[in-house]
Amino acid sequence: MQRVNVVPEQLSFSPVVQGYWRLNDWNMQAQDILRFVEQGLELGITTTDHADVYGAFTEEGLFGQAMKLAPGLRDKIEIVSKCGILFPCEMQPDVQVVHYNNDRDYIIAAAERSLRELHTEYLDVLLIHRPDPLMDADAVAEAFSRLKQSGKVKHFGVSNFSAAKFALLQSRLDFPLVTNQLEISAIHTEYLFDGNLDYLQQQSVKPMAWSCLGGGGVFHDFQYKALRECAEAIGEQHNASLDQVLMAFVLALPSCPIPIIGSGNIERVRQQAAAVDIKLSRQQWFSLLEAARGYTVP
Amino acid sequence: MQRVNVVPEQLSFSPVVQGYWRLNDWNMQAQDILRFVEQGLELGITTTDHADVYGAFTEEGLFGQAMKLAPGLRDKIEIVSKCGILFPCEMQPDVQVVHYNNDRDYIIAAAERSLRELHTEYLDVLLIHRPDPLMDADAVAEAFSRLKQSGKVKHFGVSNFSAAKFALLQSRLDFPLVTNQLEISAIHTEYLFDGNLDYLQQQSVKPMAWSCLGGGGVFHDFQYKALRECAEAIGEQHNASLDQVLMAFVLALPSCPIPIIGSGNIERVRQQAAAVDIKLSRQQWFSLLEAARGYTVP
Amino acid sequence: MQRVNVVPEQLSFSPVVQGYWRLNDWNMQAQDILRFVEQGLELGITTTDHADVYGAFTEEGLFGQAMKLAPGLRDKIEIVSKCGILFPCEMQPDVQVVHYNNDRDYIIAAAERSLRELHTEYLDVLLIHRPDPLMDADAVAEAFSRLKQSGKVKHFGVSNFSAAKFALLQSRLDFPLVTNQLEISAIHTEYLFDGNLDYLQQQSVKPMAWSCLGGGGVFHDFQYKALRECAEAIGEQHNASLDQVLMAFVLALPSCPIPIIGSGNIERVRQQAAAVDIKLSRQQWFSLLEAARGYTVP
Repeated sequence: MQRVNVVPEQLSFSPVVQGYWRLNDWNMQAQDILRFVEQGLELGITTTDHADVYGAFTEEGLFGQAMKLAPGLRDKIEIVSKCGILFPCEMQPDVQVVHYNNDRDYIIAAAERSLRELHTEYLDVLLIHRPDPLMDADAVAEAFSRLKQSGKVKHFGVSNFSAAKFALLQSRLDFPLVTNQLEISAIHTEYLFDGNLDYLQQQSVKPMAWSCLGGGGVFHDFQYKALRECAEAIGEQHNASLDQVLMAFVLALPSCPIPIIGSGNIERVRQQAAAVDIKLSRQQWFSLLEAARGYTVP
Repeated sequence: MQRVNVVPEQLSFSPVVQGYWRLNDWNMQAQDILRFVEQGLELGITTTDHADVYGAFTEEGLFGQAMKLAPGLRDKIEIVSKCGILFPCEMQPDVQVVHYNNDRDYIIAAAERSLRELHTEYLDVLLIHRPDPLMDADAVAEAFSRLKQSGKVKHFGVSNFSAAKFALLQSRLDFPLVTNQLEISAIHTEYLFDGNLDYLQQQSVKPMAWSCLGGGGVFHDFQYKALRECAEAIGEQHNASLDQVLMAFVLALPSCPIPIIGSGNIERVRQQAAAVDIKLSRQQWFSLLEAARGYTVP
Repeated sequence: MQRVNVVPEQLSFSPVVQGYWRLNDWNMQAQDILRFVEQGLELGITTTDHADVYGAFTEEGLFGQAMKLAPGLRDKIEIVSKCGILFPCEMQPDVQVVHYNNDRDYIIAAAERSLRELHTEYLDVLLIHRPDPLMDADAVAEAFSRLKQSGKVKHFGVSNFSAAKFALLQSRLDFPLVTNQLEISAIHTEYLFDGNLDYLQQQSVKPMAWSCLGGGGVFHDFQYKALRECAEAIGEQHNASLDQVLMAFVLALPSCPIPIIGSGNIERVRQQAAAVDIKLSRQQWFSLLEAARGYTVP
């Protein structure tokens, strides 16, 4: 698989990213996780996606146990993590309300906690997890600058941001935000039409795409019957699975989204990763869009 | 009628444009079309609007038959055409799905087909017909540059684009997009409020306006009764028809839209074109908006 | 109270602004108004907000009667006023339709009328009251430039504008627009999410905020029960009133809105102004947002 240039000469990602959102549900011990990471590497998947908040603030720690077992692993992978969401859970006994925190010192402390949990000395990329109406762009910029200067974080980005909020934060930085991690799928096409992906294409910023399969619903919910049937028919033409067709839908976008694979099953990961070789025709792509939305383009 | 400066010292349009969207429904032979064009010229209407897709990919050919009859005609008119929409029809036997294509080679081939169909050696303006979620701005820019260098197309623009998508494409070009052809009428006022016309005014780009009369509905549908009555009352004050008042509503906008007239009846064309001399007062304009929307401005 | 820097070294406002929208309902004579202004000054409130249209074009005149009584008052206050709205009322016998006028000469005449009514030789700030689909940015820019050159108006801004319309008008000016007066409250959070406040933060333009308490409804309407109860519980923690908590919600925003107080009761003004000292925690702020919207942030 050909790697994706995220920052020219500074940062590249594998063409799909392994997500660890649901790591806690996979019933894996540290040894199992390590083996899963290594199997991914054999497939060419080097980039891993985390967040402090995943697994109710326990996912990074779990992954870190695997990192501890293989000191040489760090140089073979890229680690993306996120901060800023807080919600009531065991690890956050003082939190009563779902909320965001993107204060300068909070971001720095959150990044440092991620380093400890993940047993690493640096993050490749740190993202602000959610657009925060209380985000003071200068405060975030100062946190980012300090983390960069200290070498604790190499690059920075955002997640679920609008173009306006991306532009705001970028305006305060003297280095480029490297990604905006967005929900993009055949059943979540909002960003294809509201200017967000246009803006990223204009800035040559490559989005990461989460939930490319649209959550499990596409596979069995009645409301997605038309999309499912359309994707299956297209799959037959490419000798491809439903997963692969849905991934290929996202990969076809000219903003070049980098899909995050959420599965912990290496066979499913292998299958989804293989979608990078599927080139949907324009007619196939638009027939998926039509099946998903229920109407043709004008 | 005073001509409209579209690109200073390079391109001007007549203040209204003759649209040939429905040419196929007018039951005209080449000789009739030629006569219709010439009658338009007598009114000062020199700019003609086409698209490859009009008449299910036959409109340009029909118009071209008229062009063939009068070799001197080409220098007296401006030809605007569009490409990028494909849909199942006799002329496109391989198309099963309504879709867009704005690949580099497709655009070039489409423009060349338009030249052949229209019996002309150049288009004054070529527009991307619809905002395409698969539009690779670099690919479009390369197609435009090649068509410009070869002299086959003088100027370029878009149609139905958002401000974000316009800005994306413009960012890849070293010459300005000259227009964005948008649906604008008293019953389609969305672009007046969503920033699209603000953006065009800021960039000094003059929109072309399609469906300024809002489709035939305004003339008889019950739901437009209030607008119709309001427009008729205003018409009495200006000694103007309902058509003219609706055209004047669009012509009053500060982004200076250039209306496209859709009629193939020269008397109706004459009437609508005369709307350029009607200056609605602000009270008249806002009373039309209020009648169309059912509520006053705040 | 620490003053707010609106234009560095040129213009500062008190951290809350006294609004005179409803001056006509307060049953005050000139002497009462003067006393009310002076009581505000004792609280540190120097900035006053007006509009030609308030009180059906009579508010400025009423306020001006108080100005006449105290010739030294002008130097102690800032006067913000607005123009552009017209509606049928006794003072506008020729107006039949609610509409806007932002023609060059109209703006100049409106500003001059405000000067006469307010008994002052200059406005500190003049705002275009509403985004006007007929706004010709060049015409507004010329009006602003003339008013600035003549010394009649020191600074200019807008009210209720989208980011796109703000950018349009700014593009025609060689001096910065100093504010955008927007409706912002716990029950009107649209601008927190649509990019408008992001844009203003990016441009370092401080919004003024109107209707921060969300109209009287929050205080008794059943639909705001959850917000009211949440605000009251937070109020207990700060020893603060419902008004103060709602004001603090707006003051917490990183775009630094300057709230306009609408009350003519000096005790209520004192109470609301004291909200500038209340710092809501992030958990408190997000619990208000959640109570107002009925769902948590994602």
